[in-house]
Amino acid sequence: MNRPQPVEKMIEVIKRLPGVGPKMAERLSYHILKMSHVEVGKLIGSIQKARQVMKCCNICYNLSEYNPCPICSDVARTRGTICIVETPQDLIAVSRVKNYKGLYFVLGGALSPLDAVGPDDIRVDKLIKRLKNSSVDEVIIATDTDSKGEITAVYLADIIKRLGIKVTRLGYGLPVGGDIEYADEVTISRAIAGRTEM
Amino acid sequence: MNRPQPVEKMIEVIKRLPGVGPKMAERLSYHILKMSHVEVGKLIGSIQKARQVMKCCNICYNLSEYNPCPICSDVARTRGTICIVETPQDLIAVSRVKNYKGLYFVLGGALSPLDAVGPDDIRVDKLIKRLKNSSVDEVIIATDTDSKGEITAVYLADIIKRLGIKVTRLGYGLPVGGDIEYADEVTISRAIAGRTEM
Repeated sequence: MNRPQPVEKMIEVIKRLPGVGPKMAERLSYHILKMSHVEVGKLIGSIQKARQVMKCCNICYNLSEYNPCPICSDVARTRGTICIVETPQDLIAVSRVKNYKGLYFVLGGALSPLDAVGPDDIRVDKLIKRLKNSSVDEVIIATDTDSKGEITAVYLADIIKRLGIKVTRLGYGLPVGGDIEYADEVTISRAIAGRTEM
Repeated sequence: MNRPQPVEKMIEVIKRLPGVGPKMAERLSYHILKMSHVEVGKLIGSIQKARQVMKCCNICYNLSEYNPCPICSDVARTRGTICIVETPQDLIAVSRVKNYKGLYFVLGGALSPLDAVGPDDIRVDKLIKRLKNSSVDEVIIATDTDSKGEITAVYLADIIKRLGIKVTRLGYGLPVGGDIEYADEVTISRAIAGRTEM
């Protein structure tokens, strides 16, 4: 006997999620089939709700319930500094550091020549447009410290410097090869204090 | 900035799935937020469809689109042998073996005194009732070979033997394609006990 077709289909779809292998997808599928109606309702409801209410901020491209997001509409923040991150998760990690009072820009990924991810696949154009239309003194590049993040940082630094804007990179208090999302607050704070001009 | 509440809620719900930790739940949630409408529709649709059409067979408690399931309604199968498994996934694994032509019974778990899972939490009553109401000659116990599966096998064997039915357990030994070097002592010991003449 093979697996029934609807279960096979569910496993197929769940398997496409990141970090989920075939065995994990099977386990999750059979678990979902065993869950109560209330639990499944909560699972599907929370996904639908989040998809419905979460918006992409038109200024920084952060995910938020509001557009512009609370950070961009916070008048107490320094308008002259923008911190560039790869993902909304990275933005949250950096924003936990209380001594950074500037704004952000979410690229939505990193350059990756091997995966054919070029400048057109992340928000390079939108970043340049924003920098041209506002009086920014300094851009802090806070992409991941893996090879993709490094390539992206070098690429962006080159473009931004040509606009006459000071470009800095988070200091290497960060472990090289690491993921900003998983860095602790103290490490990120040290990295901000030790940022270097590119 | 903390994570927006709807994202937090989604992570909270996804974290409850088996084998999904907090970091994995966060990664999945942000991935789902980035997925296209079509992809999210497929994910939710496949779950809802499977939940809707999959039924629990009234005879063997296997999950199937039909009730009774195709195995129980297959007249070509031997009615006198029943193979007991813990889960529908186990049933599918056993049913891939072409030379087993008997029927099945899905317990829906295994006894686990430490987790307070007793005979009332798995389908022991339903199994006894079925065995009493049909002419079964042999029951093959195919529960897992971990401690929970072993406890369950011993418990069931004791009850079923009292009904005058022959009880067998899947043979122990080395897995085919395995490496003796990595086999544990208990498995090797069982394999020696169950050695066959060449």
